[in-house]
Amino acid sequence: MTKPLADCSVHIIGLGLMGGSLAMALGGKVRRLTAEDCAPGILQKALANGVIHAVDRSAEADIVILAAPADQIIRIIPSLVLKPGALVIDLGSTKTRICDQLDALPPDVQAVGGHPMCGLAENGFDHAIPTGYHGARFVLCETARTTYEAKWLAEALVRAVGAHALWMDRSRHDHLTALISHLPHLLSFALMELAMEAAGEDEALFDLAAGGFDGATRLARTDKTMIVGMFCTNADQLRAAVNQFRTHLDHLEALLDNAPELNDELGQIVAARRAYTTHYGERLIS
Amino acid sequence: MTKPLADCSVHIIGLGLMGGSLAMALGGKVRRLTAEDCAPGILQKALANGVIHAVDRSAEADIVILAAPADQIIRIIPSLVLKPGALVIDLGSTKTRICDQLDALPPDVQAVGGHPMCGLAENGFDHAIPTGYHGARFVLCETARTTYEAKWLAEALVRAVGAHALWMDRSRHDHLTALISHLPHLLSFALMELAMEAAGEDEALFDLAAGGFDGATRLARTDKTMIVGMFCTNADQLRAAVNQFRTHLDHLEALLDNAPELNDELGQIVAARRAYTTHYGERLIS
Repeated sequence: MTKPLADCSVHIIGLGLMGGSLAMALGGKVRRLTAEDCAPGILQKALANGVIHAVDRSAEADIVILAAPADQIIRIIPSLVLKPGALVIDLGSTKTRICDQLDALPPDVQAVGGHPMCGLAENGFDHAIPTGYHGARFVLCETARTTYEAKWLAEALVRAVGAHALWMDRSRHDHLTALISHLPHLLSFALMELAMEAAGEDEALFDLAAGGFDGATRLARTDKTMIVGMFCTNADQLRAAVNQFRTHLDHLEALLDNAPELNDELGQIVAARRAYTTHYGERLIS
Repeated sequence: MTKPLADCSVHIIGLGLMGGSLAMALGGKVRRLTAEDCAPGILQKALANGVIHAVDRSAEADIVILAAPADQIIRIIPSLVLKPGALVIDLGSTKTRICDQLDALPPDVQAVGGHPMCGLAENGFDHAIPTGYHGARFVLCETARTTYEAKWLAEALVRAVGAHALWMDRSRHDHLTALISHLPHLLSFALMELAMEAAGEDEALFDLAAGGFDGATRLARTDKTMIVGMFCTNADQLRAAVNQFRTHLDHLEALLDNAPELNDELGQIVAARRAYTTHYGERLIS
């Protein structure tokens, strides 16, 4: 291949929030942009807005982007029609099971697992924005189909959308994201479900809610299809994270009556969280 | 008494975020504003900025506001020096133990328990703003020292700072806020503590964090003194809320491998959370 990104045709499967934002960010930076999606209206809108050049299939593309929920990506990979030398990159939120599938692609194609660490509570092409990837970490995972050429082209694509490539082993990715992303989502869903139950018993509950509750449950607004794909394809790692979480919850609960120890413990956590803000800033999801 | 709010002198004990914002919001709406605080520098700054008229004690005030962490309020109440007919209102985040103390004030003073449902992750007078209470629910609790006159004057004060009064039994308040406020705080602390431990084992963890993690741990930036006071004075109700939360977490965890059921369950939660946004808007804490 050895074509630079600017000479490549890029085909995106799934033109939702992530695929749509990627298409917008790549505008003018690749030779040709095509897409497919199960919703024809979205494709027509993307065509009309000039976000893509044509509605097409993957067979002629130099780079094929899989921008569907993780469980759907796993089902899509074995049925992909690819030209020799094509590079497949997925955007799924879990990596082990997807990369295991990418390993099994024919030897004449290339493949890199990907996970851009950005997103919004809202989903769909209508929320896609060209700056969606700006400043985000974009995890890349080697597969059995990753050549140096594939690495070079994948990194160029990540740079082109304004993100920063971070190469990482697939299982390490799934362990870390279970802790830092999937667990916070699960806690948010469990808290919202508890609040729904409690509000059924006393309707004043939500009248007392303020910014703290809103922030703690904001992830429970996320598109369920994406979340189900994320949870189901990383269930073991997520269960391990939940168990670790229970240990910390139990520990803090045991200190609730012990003001001096609670003061020490919370003081360390607050200091770490404020240092984190100083280092990374505070990122809001809408 | 039967004096309108505009003719009252108001004394604030504790000139932090909540007390400072209250003083700013009352500027020009009461006859005289005084304050005391364990930090002399804060008092001098508030004087210099014209936020208060004088540094004083509570003995001459018509209305005395207790704006300290909940556990400190419990210690302050028995030692209050008050003039006959004075009205005490506290701003503590838990109400049962504070109102029990207010019940025991001398019969010639009046008292109402209060909890304004607003706040910031940052604390202290330097973050106080005159609009801090705008649009917030302000829970008020009757005590054995609550006359109609006290109710009337407390409601006038709540209106004067731009908030909405919501009368509620002390134990109902503590049950509901354990669920909607204290539990989200505890979850945020436990998640941040887990992340600190995990980052010690793999430093790439925080590099993968994005807006979802930031939002889920934002409450762990809150002033620890306020949180310790809140947790310690409502430990039983908070433990009950934690147990209810565990039930929902266990339930969702059991569905992680079951995509169809998980899809149904998360779908109901997402729909409820989105309806909540439609009804209440999304409130951010800084």
